[in-house]
Amino acid sequence: MPREITAFSNPLIKYVRDLRDKRHRREAHQFLAEGLRILTEARDMDRLPRMLFYAAASAAHPLVRELVIAVETDGGEVIETTPAILSKLSGKDNPQAVVGVFDEFEVGLEGLDRASSAIWLVAERLRDPGNLGTILRTGDAVGAGALILIGECVDPFSVEAVRASMGALFTVPIVRCDWAEFLTWLRDGPGQLVGLSLDTETDYRAAGYSAPTFLLTGNEAQGMPPEMAAACDILVKIPMLGKADSLNAAVATAVMAYEVLGQQ
Amino acid sequence: MPREITAFSNPLIKYVRDLRDKRHRREAHQFLAEGLRILTEARDMDRLPRMLFYAAASAAHPLVRELVIAVETDGGEVIETTPAILSKLSGKDNPQAVVGVFDEFEVGLEGLDRASSAIWLVAERLRDPGNLGTILRTGDAVGAGALILIGECVDPFSVEAVRASMGALFTVPIVRCDWAEFLTWLRDGPGQLVGLSLDTETDYRAAGYSAPTFLLTGNEAQGMPPEMAAACDILVKIPMLGKADSLNAAVATAVMAYEVLGQQ
Repeated sequence: MPREITAFSNPLIKYVRDLRDKRHRREAHQFLAEGLRILTEARDMDRLPRMLFYAAASAAHPLVRELVIAVETDGGEVIETTPAILSKLSGKDNPQAVVGVFDEFEVGLEGLDRASSAIWLVAERLRDPGNLGTILRTGDAVGAGALILIGECVDPFSVEAVRASMGALFTVPIVRCDWAEFLTWLRDGPGQLVGLSLDTETDYRAAGYSAPTFLLTGNEAQGMPPEMAAACDILVKIPMLGKADSLNAAVATAVMAYEVLGQQ
Repeated sequence: MPREITAFSNPLIKYVRDLRDKRHRREAHQFLAEGLRILTEARDMDRLPRMLFYAAASAAHPLVRELVIAVETDGGEVIETTPAILSKLSGKDNPQAVVGVFDEFEVGLEGLDRASSAIWLVAERLRDPGNLGTILRTGDAVGAGALILIGECVDPFSVEAVRASMGALFTVPIVRCDWAEFLTWLRDGPGQLVGLSLDTETDYRAAGYSAPTFLLTGNEAQGMPPEMAAACDILVKIPMLGKADSLNAAVATAVMAYEVLGQQ
């Protein structure tokens, strides 16, 4: 049976609200995901929240009922609450119907099978959570083997990244590692490292890609440092005809990934 | 000589702060743009702010000095202020070095020359300001003739859209109109209307594009309504191999736009 919480002062509400904050997430190793679409996507990938919050008014929604049963069967906690408390949890005036608290998950490089996919996305020092979520979504669409995050990247479990991923957080494996670890792992097997750069004459459509292709995107403002560019098998550029200067990092990653997919 | 404002209570500060709000923008026909990069981009396009705010500590920065001179020469107002007030204007703890107040600008369909570009971006009921800004940035990169916004779209002059555009707001013409006006204008001359859709078997790489190509992207959640799809010369889809459902609207627009650019 769902537990009922209607008091803002309930310590569980404070705990969940605090998961919006990076420091608390790091201590708790849990994160928030909101919305029926994302939570249903997660369940389809056998990822169930440890806690599921919904407003009484949504109790009859078929997808909410399915989620409630799945979470209870899995031994998780189901909590019926008020729209005002859901708003507090989700940080939105117009809260989503459901909020889930998930255990963080992550794989290491050693958990990846590079034969499992022809495209892998690699991003270094990615700073914007919306970009990270959007890249995950693109990764899902192109069938990427994983998103590998190099160095100090934004937290993939932040509320904004989870939201922008539209569920792809649960479908695309995420690895966090440093550059040296990545390069050692990469060179221990087949794999073409393709760097997106402004400092090359090679058009991304003129280059040849061989599976498994690892697409490396640099920091939004600075691009990748010289030692990373030097380690790439090829550097390619996306032509830009305009007066402003560059493409959004998630857009550039997607344009590249679809070119690789098209060639393969 | 720059005027100095150090009091939060100054009515001009309230006026500028309120431009973050859509209702106030609509009345004032002015908007905010922040950051040296975006303001310098604007100046290079001969768009100068009516008011320029900077913190005293930034006064010696060469790009700030150039902007100050340009705005003063243009008859605009230059205001030296405190970091705290700049934070209030920009809504960020770590404010950009400069904030500009610009007059809104816009062109009508009758102001477009369809022979001037081979690619035109069209979006209907776009809801996310980050997507709008990112699409403008892509439009700049592919040399799009304009971004044509159909129906109830998010405000291109919102702070978030301006920021995401990274200056492309000033380089890509923006038209706002309704669907009937657009279709009448489009069919009054050459132009291929290409709709991005999930309900077609035509792969976007298999289709042939002829200039000028008008790329139509539908609402983020719902796609385009049937009557718009029916009016398209061709519908194309971007293949998706994943388990989640769809690409981000700005990403899909960019993947399409680069395919068209590559074919041309």
